[in-house]
Amino acid sequence: MSDVLAELATTLEQRKNAAPEESYVSSLYHKGLNKILEKVGEEATEVILAAKDLEAGGSRSEFVGEVADLWFHSMVAMAQLDVDHSEVMDCLAQRFGISGLDEKAARSEQQD
Amino acid sequence: MSDVLAELATTLEQRKNAAPEESYVSSLYHKGLNKILEKVGEEATEVILAAKDLEAGGSRSEFVGEVADLWFHSMVAMAQLDVDHSEVMDCLAQRFGISGLDEKAARSEQQD
Amino acid sequence: MSDVLAELATTLEQRKNAAPEESYVSSLYHKGLNKILEKVGEEATEVILAAKDLEAGGSRSEFVGEVADLWFHSMVAMAQLDVDHSEVMDCLAQRFGISGLDEKAARSEQQD
Amino acid sequence: MSDVLAELATTLEQRKNAAPEESYVSSLYHKGLNKILEKVGEEATEVILAAKDLEAGGSRSEFVGEVADLWFHSMVAMAQLDVDHSEVMDCLAQRFGISGLDEKAARSEQQD
Repeated sequence: MSDVLAELATTLEQRKNAAPEESYVSSLYHKGLNKILEKVGEEATEVILAAKDLEAGGSRSEFVGEVADLWFHSMVAMAQLDVDHSEVMDCLAQRFGISGLDEKAARSEQQD
Repeated sequence: MSDVLAELATTLEQRKNAAPEESYVSSLYHKGLNKILEKVGEEATEVILAAKDLEAGGSRSEFVGEVADLWFHSMVAMAQLDVDHSEVMDCLAQRFGISGLDEKAARSEQQD
Repeated sequence: MSDVLAELATTLEQRKNAAPEESYVSSLYHKGLNKILEKVGEEATEVILAAKDLEAGGSRSEFVGEVADLWFHSMVAMAQLDVDHSEVMDCLAQRFGISGLDEKAARSEQQD
Repeated sequence: MSDVLAELATTLEQRKNAAPEESYVSSLYHKGLNKILEKVGEEATEVILAAKDLEAGGSRSEFVGEVADLWFHSMVAMAQLDVDHSEVMDCLAQRFGISGLDEKAARSEQQD
């Protein structure tokens, strides 16, 4: 598992030096952060639509693919901003550690 | 790394049988899929805002925390729909395998 | 003002009977509700990005154009679902009538 | 119709000088643009969910209410950024004027 995200992170890092026409990711980097964030927003919408469709008896692989796209583009945004995915994993680990999910709940209550 | 997502998935699965008042996640399950998807949409928006703020010199940990929240709520949606996070990892692996990112580009071009 | 929305609604209604290749809107209708809602999600993201950019000294017309796109695609979704924009206007009027904005606040508090 | 948006715009302008605890809108202004844009993102998600539910036989008034909320919070964002709703109407009018919807299609094709 971890290998997938770690390997993806490494690949995303390497693509930073590529010419825009070399790959989808290099073209995204060259278009800049707004374009990458537009993709994050788009993919979140597609996750929501695919989840509703799956709940109504639709395609499971469609939903899986949209979540993969959302996580993928989150990782492109992280790469663009020089944030390592291990920081996100550490944050998740901390929040659902010993009393993690409840801490999150407490945090969330305060925010709202 | 993988341990974090795998352990989170296990915890999320266990919370399914809990009473709504026991934790934040159990309350989300009881509110149903729409409420969980609203959180996915909210967190995607917060990732976008935090990314723009980080680009403008704002907080790095804010951005990391919002990505963690987005992934966390994606995983709650997956748990609610009985989708394992390993399916998403497999999908990511497949797409960025040998010629992964370029395959994704090709796929994306067709979609648009 | 009202003429703009009313005229737009009339035009959107007429396009329902057109062939998909005749216009952008007819092609959207033929692609179906998911495609229309993807556009709503996309345009909301673009409004958010353009608002952040405007706040930071960016383009005013970019922001205005994105809000127009968001409202436009909301109206396409309404047309697809046979909802008249006057229903939305009535709803807005009701909520910010005599004690409107405060009623909205009360309603919102209950939701959260 | 137009009266609704124009009157809403006037009310939103007036609330700018109010204390945060006076109304929902004044509290939003005081929380700042990010909070307002989070609401835009949230309401867009809720429009999408309500549209899917309406398509599946769900509540029509729920959908109408969510579109009203989305437009309402768009107008709060506009007020915060000193953009008049008439600018959005002008933009819509221009785009769907004589050859409006097709011009929009052309423009959209270029963007993607």
